[in-house]
Amino acid sequence: MVHVAVFGYGTVGSGVVEVIERNNSYVSANSGDKVSVKYILDLREFPGDPYESKLVHDVETIINDDEVSICCETMGGVGAAYKFTKMALEKGKSVCSSNKELVAKHGAELMRIARENGCAYLFEASVGGGIPVLRTLTTALTAERITKIAGILNGTTNFILTRMEEDGADFDETLRKAQELGYAEKDPTADIEGHDTARKISILSDIMSGHFTDSDAVKTTGITGITATDITLAKEAGFSIRLLGIADRSEDDSVAAFVAPFLVKKGHPLAGVCDVFNAIYVTGNMLGETMYYGKGAGKLATASAVVADVIDAARKGSSTMYQGWDETPVKATPADDLEFKYYVRCPEEKFDDVQAQFPGGCRIGKFGGESGFITETLSGAEFEARLAKLGDAVLNSIRVYE
Amino acid sequence: MVHVAVFGYGTVGSGVVEVIERNNSYVSANSGDKVSVKYILDLREFPGDPYESKLVHDVETIINDDEVSICCETMGGVGAAYKFTKMALEKGKSVCSSNKELVAKHGAELMRIARENGCAYLFEASVGGGIPVLRTLTTALTAERITKIAGILNGTTNFILTRMEEDGADFDETLRKAQELGYAEKDPTADIEGHDTARKISILSDIMSGHFTDSDAVKTTGITGITATDITLAKEAGFSIRLLGIADRSEDDSVAAFVAPFLVKKGHPLAGVCDVFNAIYVTGNMLGETMYYGKGAGKLATASAVVADVIDAARKGSSTMYQGWDETPVKATPADDLEFKYYVRCPEEKFDDVQAQFPGGCRIGKFGGESGFITETLSGAEFEARLAKLGDAVLNSIRVYE
Repeated sequence: MVHVAVFGYGTVGSGVVEVIERNNSYVSANSGDKVSVKYILDLREFPGDPYESKLVHDVETIINDDEVSICCETMGGVGAAYKFTKMALEKGKSVCSSNKELVAKHGAELMRIARENGCAYLFEASVGGGIPVLRTLTTALTAERITKIAGILNGTTNFILTRMEEDGADFDETLRKAQELGYAEKDPTADIEGHDTARKISILSDIMSGHFTDSDAVKTTGITGITATDITLAKEAGFSIRLLGIADRSEDDSVAAFVAPFLVKKGHPLAGVCDVFNAIYVTGNMLGETMYYGKGAGKLATASAVVADVIDAARKGSSTMYQGWDETPVKATPADDLEFKYYVRCPEEKFDDVQAQFPGGCRIGKFGGESGFITETLSGAEFEARLAKLGDAVLNSIRVYE
Repeated sequence: MVHVAVFGYGTVGSGVVEVIERNNSYVSANSGDKVSVKYILDLREFPGDPYESKLVHDVETIINDDEVSICCETMGGVGAAYKFTKMALEKGKSVCSSNKELVAKHGAELMRIARENGCAYLFEASVGGGIPVLRTLTTALTAERITKIAGILNGTTNFILTRMEEDGADFDETLRKAQELGYAEKDPTADIEGHDTARKISILSDIMSGHFTDSDAVKTTGITGITATDITLAKEAGFSIRLLGIADRSEDDSVAAFVAPFLVKKGHPLAGVCDVFNAIYVTGNMLGETMYYGKGAGKLATASAVVADVIDAARKGSSTMYQGWDETPVKATPADDLEFKYYVRCPEEKFDDVQAQFPGGCRIGKFGGESGFITETLSGAEFEARLAKLGDAVLNSIRVYE
């Protein structure tokens, strides 16, 4: 019998219990042993809950129970979650986590502690929810030098951008709609400003490079500045706007990791990723381009990924570990060193000024007294320098994904 | 040192050597030991080839060399490939294969022989080329009950269908173009009639169900009957036509596996898979829908998948095995039990007859004196019965994917 404890009985935690119970025949067969939830740790009471009898309020009960070999950390945050994870790993209990913040911040240390204690720290659910991208990178694309990862990693922003395109609506209005539907939180800052995506692309960069990427240092532009006019101009020119996390690896193994909205040509697989779906586009030097698509969030999809880690920890014991990354910081390249074409929007009457600054570009459309324009390929630094000369003539600018 | 032998120095086999050599630092690091090609088996001579010194013409040299622990079978066919694979496995050498025909026909037996001899029979490259879908199904989606797999599994037919849609060209003309570009073989039968897809969906059905699916019994409709008019009518109604392999699992674990062209609504991720790319769309009971996209063929992409298996065999020794399937035949449901809407094309003057047979359907367009029509949802048997009453009024019919 494999005894599991679940830390945190919120959305994902209750999903983990549900997946283990409802799919127990699959979960146990694939683990090679019967899997059972022994404890659920939460400070709250859940009177009448079918698993009420498994609730405990004290982590020590779990840590000191030698029968428990695997803990699922679905609490979130870097406070108690960090402490409890360390306690479990130090006792040789594997920890399976959906906590992207903790993985981005302390993943390397926690994997080291796991190795030292003959157990595993696994976190498939922390990036891309139900999409098995971390396991793919570490166990399937092993013959590759991965050179670039571009991901739609946040369902809230992708829902907003898709709805703005479909309905021709403004950002504020669409955000409200997303909040009503439960796709955006009351305080949506972490999603719409790109911080959530920054954590996830940091973890992907960690795995690609083998070294620590500081998510706080990832340059992040969110989607709050995107107007209905941007969406319309892009759409009419054959583009969708998507918020991408990018990790781009150079020949010298330095990595440029950043988060920004992009114009993506319709027909590119990333442009076809709509609503709350996520996708991760991976380029390898032999394989070329592959993409992994699915639900990036949601109770059962995320829980399924946590339970896949439980199965992995159960069936291979301490031999299962992501190749992981070490605590040495990755050599970081500024995003502005990379070259892109840029979409810019300006008032009609400023169009000639814009064209004069970007003589290799071309107009893509006009709408409501404003023009859309795509520049020639430029480094970020060069683009910014020319932009500065235009003062307030440019109302918005967005990179073009190619 | 991990000594590898490559059986067959054709496109994929030479790709395997190239991936192991060019990416040796990654391949060796991920294997936990230096990986090196010791032998290449081929009946032909390759004078001047950089690996000429590794060529042998006799399989016994490899089988009797105890240093060789892993063989890559990239010969194809079920004759010598079958014999050599068995010989290697019986000597405890793991075999990594790109040979879908052999896997579809004898996979269960070869996995059993591998188990009995403490080694592994691995074949990631046999389905979806560089897309790591088999490893995903067996090591990542382990907490799931997989209920359905729908795949674009053949690059040749997808190229033809995409080009017909883009260029408005006929089938024959587009096939010739594909042959000129090297995307279709001189004898394209196995691709265009769907037999290649049938083998791949059989392997996916094997893994989903745990039992043997006879690829020869998979009902297969190819794309030779699709005209430029079908493509145009579908396109104008917002659909692309794609050749899909489908494996649909019922509550009672029976599986309906078949190959047929489908109208796929634009906006669905499968409709966005263009040219020679492949994709596998997987539905799980907790996870919902995920998709895996990439190059389904090509020298280096396929070779990368073979080498990922080499790494897996090297780093985990005999403990690595796909969960696989047994030799018991799966309980097969006829594809005609499944319900779909059907697109039908008829001459204008027969339209009223068609509408009378399918009163719940509706016209989707007219082109060149012919009409396109989509029926209500019907079982295959019911559809065929009504079709029979229409005699030669219906010029073509294609299922609609929903």
